[in-house]
Amino acid sequence: MSEPTPSMQVPNRVIPVPTSVSPAAQSILALGPIDQGEWPALDDTEGWLAFRASSEQLIAAALAGQLMGNDQVEDLDIDGVRIYAITPESPVADDNRVYLYFHGGGLVTGGGDCCRDFGRMTAAHTGLKVWAVDYRMPPESPYPAALDDCMVAYRALLDSYPADRILVGGASAGGNLAAALSLRARDEGLPLPAATVLLTPELDLTESGDSFQTNLGIDMVLTRSLMPANQLYAAGHDLSDPYLSPLFGDFDKGFPPTFLCTGTRDLFLSNTVRMHRILRAAGIEADLNVFEAMPHGGFMIPTPEDEDMKAEVNRFIQVHCPQP
Amino acid sequence: MSEPTPSMQVPNRVIPVPTSVSPAAQSILALGPIDQGEWPALDDTEGWLAFRASSEQLIAAALAGQLMGNDQVEDLDIDGVRIYAITPESPVADDNRVYLYFHGGGLVTGGGDCCRDFGRMTAAHTGLKVWAVDYRMPPESPYPAALDDCMVAYRALLDSYPADRILVGGASAGGNLAAALSLRARDEGLPLPAATVLLTPELDLTESGDSFQTNLGIDMVLTRSLMPANQLYAAGHDLSDPYLSPLFGDFDKGFPPTFLCTGTRDLFLSNTVRMHRILRAAGIEADLNVFEAMPHGGFMIPTPEDEDMKAEVNRFIQVHCPQP
Repeated sequence: MSEPTPSMQVPNRVIPVPTSVSPAAQSILALGPIDQGEWPALDDTEGWLAFRASSEQLIAAALAGQLMGNDQVEDLDIDGVRIYAITPESPVADDNRVYLYFHGGGLVTGGGDCCRDFGRMTAAHTGLKVWAVDYRMPPESPYPAALDDCMVAYRALLDSYPADRILVGGASAGGNLAAALSLRARDEGLPLPAATVLLTPELDLTESGDSFQTNLGIDMVLTRSLMPANQLYAAGHDLSDPYLSPLFGDFDKGFPPTFLCTGTRDLFLSNTVRMHRILRAAGIEADLNVFEAMPHGGFMIPTPEDEDMKAEVNRFIQVHCPQP
Repeated sequence: MSEPTPSMQVPNRVIPVPTSVSPAAQSILALGPIDQGEWPALDDTEGWLAFRASSEQLIAAALAGQLMGNDQVEDLDIDGVRIYAITPESPVADDNRVYLYFHGGGLVTGGGDCCRDFGRMTAAHTGLKVWAVDYRMPPESPYPAALDDCMVAYRALLDSYPADRILVGGASAGGNLAAALSLRARDEGLPLPAATVLLTPELDLTESGDSFQTNLGIDMVLTRSLMPANQLYAAGHDLSDPYLSPLFGDFDKGFPPTFLCTGTRDLFLSNTVRMHRILRAAGIEADLNVFEAMPHGGFMIPTPEDEDMKAEVNRFIQVHCPQP
């Protein structure tokens, strides 16, 4: 018999929209939690495909209003992996850097046009050339398909760029893949990228962090456990394997300097701050940025807070991967 | 007529002790919220004095178990201000640095023996000479008495030390005074200290941050608003004055490099992360560290997490105020 887990009773509460964020951010927080319905059953392949289609439609509609500038997008096929190679409207002259970008979406959605538009936004924000990887996803292609695709893209970039000119990053599930890629590249004897950019990263598919409990019902974007998606992705692999949950990696063997950001209301707050501490303990340079009252992924519309976050990412890139 | 504040209903919840912290930290979190009773009424002078006496007794008892080493403590009286000048057991040879330390306790308690022992612990952790200021407090001596006393100590140190050999810091209310002192020293034309160390700092006596709501009932140490203590301290002064709430200061005019730490369960999480963003926006070097599931002030017993925090403080000091 196992002991019952000691626990704390927190009474029901009314949490007002804070005055400590911008009016634009307040207008988003005032909307309250986004109803996301039920996850499909694990064996409901059609249900997962329908979930992906409808959520990608919603994401694409949300991204359509975002400014991406007059960029150029080239569709690449590298060993069967779809990659969008994006040149921003105003690239830095003679820039020899590239940003390898992995999209978010819980490892089960966010591909296709969403991936392309996320990549275009990243190019617009950073002014960098971006390779956005449209990695395979479950239910058709569970782990390790996505990470394999990311590795194909990284190896291809290494043919044209020195590793110290390559940035690797992404938000949410993209942060998972960026961290997992860095661990796997190291383990396979490849040189490490110049830096990783982990935006509110999904680093722990076991969901052991405290904020999975404390920020449940507080985060208006991630309003429930992602465990069904995690299990679909893992397809029987151990969720605590570092290639699935990079938080459990061995960072003493090396890892790139890392930018981390999250929000105080983020369900992934614990993911992010735990990664920061683990990297610092291993002597890896890591910069933590936590935004007031921000839910998972930002405030979804242009806000001063989101502008601040982008500026902070660019400062970090300029320090760790400067254009000479 | 004002509009009602939009708000979010969060149902009652059971929050388990997380497995993502050390067993020692788990044993503390399993205790649940510490019952702190009612604050005295604002005009109940005897009540506040009794509160201070009983809480200082509790703090002193808790500190008695902490290792402080075979240090030396000299009691100073500088223009009527009581200061404990502490030399640690094993000071760095020829160290010409000093740590000006302000104790916590909500600006209404934590003086006397508590102040002395907090200072001794700081000397033991950092290996630095420490001046711990036993500043005056309300109800007898409200604002600006405490800050005046801190200024007396800083001016006295400037007679013997170059400013870039002086660190200023403290936890909670001590972080308030450390930040307020830096602002006021700057405004009065004094040189800035080498760095400030703000440990889960009480930077906003108006309590406008989101975590004052979201972490209420989650933080087992600060289990209620501190507004009665804030009002007693302010004694009619504007709570949003930067010398009372340093978060509202103008940092474009200069501020020392700053170490910041907090926990994901800390009622002062918002205080800390907002300060980090404000300093970064002003181009001030600021290092944010957030500890998993940590309540206000740490886990109260020796834990790996608290050791990690002390090590991080020492790394920061070594970068920003190195012993030559």
